[in-house]
Amino acid sequence: MLGTILHGPRDVRCEEVPEPRIQKPTDAVIRLSASCVCGSDMWPFRGLNEVTQPMAMGHEYCGVVEEVGSAVTTVKPGQFVVGSFCLSDNTCPHCRRGFQSSCVQREFMSGAQAPRARVPLADGTLVATETLPPDDLIPSLLAVSDVLGTGWYAADAARVEPGSTVAVVGDGAVGLMGVLAAKEMGAARIFAMSRHEARQNLALEFGATDIVTERGEAGVEAIKRLTNGVGADSVLECVGTREAMMQAIEAARPGAMVGYVGVPHGVELDGQWLFFSQRGLLGGPAPVRRFLPHLIDLVLTRKIDPGKVFDLKIPLADVAEGYRAMDERRAIKTLLQV
Amino acid sequence: MLGTILHGPRDVRCEEVPEPRIQKPTDAVIRLSASCVCGSDMWPFRGLNEVTQPMAMGHEYCGVVEEVGSAVTTVKPGQFVVGSFCLSDNTCPHCRRGFQSSCVQREFMSGAQAPRARVPLADGTLVATETLPPDDLIPSLLAVSDVLGTGWYAADAARVEPGSTVAVVGDGAVGLMGVLAAKEMGAARIFAMSRHEARQNLALEFGATDIVTERGEAGVEAIKRLTNGVGADSVLECVGTREAMMQAIEAARPGAMVGYVGVPHGVELDGQWLFFSQRGLLGGPAPVRRFLPHLIDLVLTRKIDPGKVFDLKIPLADVAEGYRAMDERRAIKTLLQV
Repeated sequence: MLGTILHGPRDVRCEEVPEPRIQKPTDAVIRLSASCVCGSDMWPFRGLNEVTQPMAMGHEYCGVVEEVGSAVTTVKPGQFVVGSFCLSDNTCPHCRRGFQSSCVQREFMSGAQAPRARVPLADGTLVATETLPPDDLIPSLLAVSDVLGTGWYAADAARVEPGSTVAVVGDGAVGLMGVLAAKEMGAARIFAMSRHEARQNLALEFGATDIVTERGEAGVEAIKRLTNGVGADSVLECVGTREAMMQAIEAARPGAMVGYVGVPHGVELDGQWLFFSQRGLLGGPAPVRRFLPHLIDLVLTRKIDPGKVFDLKIPLADVAEGYRAMDERRAIKTLLQV
Repeated sequence: MLGTILHGPRDVRCEEVPEPRIQKPTDAVIRLSASCVCGSDMWPFRGLNEVTQPMAMGHEYCGVVEEVGSAVTTVKPGQFVVGSFCLSDNTCPHCRRGFQSSCVQREFMSGAQAPRARVPLADGTLVATETLPPDDLIPSLLAVSDVLGTGWYAADAARVEPGSTVAVVGDGAVGLMGVLAAKEMGAARIFAMSRHEARQNLALEFGATDIVTERGEAGVEAIKRLTNGVGADSVLECVGTREAMMQAIEAARPGAMVGYVGVPHGVELDGQWLFFSQRGLLGGPAPVRRFLPHLIDLVLTRKIDPGKVFDLKIPLADVAEGYRAMDERRAIKTLLQV
């Protein structure tokens, strides 16, 4: 079959790859309904994470189970499933605490930018729907798998509460999903930091009440101005650069939590500065599995429409263009028709 | 009157200082019932914080109001009061949120290792008791002012809950108060990390269920062993060194909060490492004012006895010996009879 392999910086190809097969009794093989390119795929694509060997790309997925290993009991062939980009057993103490992304058996999904994929730890990772969902909901169900689940975790880690003020740093797909999550959690004001018109519009559609176009110190000052000098009750950091992290911490009010989900690159925090800032931090790979049932339900009942984040839909064969469009910020997020 | 001045590293003197007086309408002047030496006084005493000019030492206090400025309405001469080492107006948005240690008017108390002291922002900072407390409760009421309030904040920031497992890094006075706080908050198991017998005994008296004598990596392994490989639900970091901070973060389970109250010295955190560790952080100067009414009540009703942390009681004139005893770890905490 065709799949997506990253050979080196900016060298991503749709090429022949081996068919996935059951390797362990806990595996499933699924036929994907759609796949997509993640903002985190940009790190190795841009050469900011080293690529030492060809990498099978893709970790966001939903689709129909084709085959399961002998130990799998909770999903069966023919069922539609959504899974997390973090593979987890969902039974270890970290999973039971809701941190499946730190599962003692954690693996990261790969090879999902393809028509079929192997999903290890199927019982702990996949959630099946009662019936096959309508086609028009596929993009939103695909979004649940990572980009929405990650934005949701950022809002959860930042302890967004009904009536609170929330600042979202980053207007990538995760940041936009963070806006949607904050809205769903009842935030009264949501400040989306963006200077890109299409993303601003989507942020407003997802529930942002204010657009902040300034960055860095000026961005912090803008948030302070909008909150009567106080700072935001919760801040979602959805980028991962040093500038974004500093902006996020400084835009928060003392005692507030910053939920950070952009994988930090070049971020060093001075302990004494952080101490006197009195802002809290919680981040890491999102435990999407914790949120899957709730988010799938919100999509199936059409209460949210996260699929709107896909503003480019192309065939798998054109995956390289999908990467380039995101790299050049021509696309927010690329959906791959597999 | 006599007061305590730090002239340079290891040069602390009890010497003649000016009498405190009302300088602003919001000030009070109190006669201290007792004073004490703080673990944080060790930083400048040891030369780890620069001393550029003579410093009036002492920020922990309780006592009787002697005089108030014209704007003070909530306390009056003759009342017994306890205040926080952080002076706050208790009306700004940060105060109302319970983070009085980030008050927009925040100042830090000074000059309290003396018989009398000026307390700025008296209305927002001081809490009066209904009647004069009995003498034997003075050490415990003094402890509320900083050392207990700080240990309490560490437990609060680490989100200690009934039934949880808690690790406390640091067997100084604040760490011991952290043990007491975790116990009061209902922790089921409390791991006190200490290799000093007198401190171990006090930790056990305050509610520790286990003593961990290992440090660094071995200490982390010990906590893991005691928690079936999971890590602690909450960790209190009460030292401020790099080693202690790393130990605290690594001893926590994924998703757990580390409440850190030791002022960080030489602590740098790598963002990506912290991200993948998935541990949360909240620290800073303790907003003791938030906890004052509750802690004063616990002392007055004799439910807790934090005053036990004072294992050296000496006259103010001997303050230099009080510093040396703490520096050499001969004393946990020195009470000064003023």
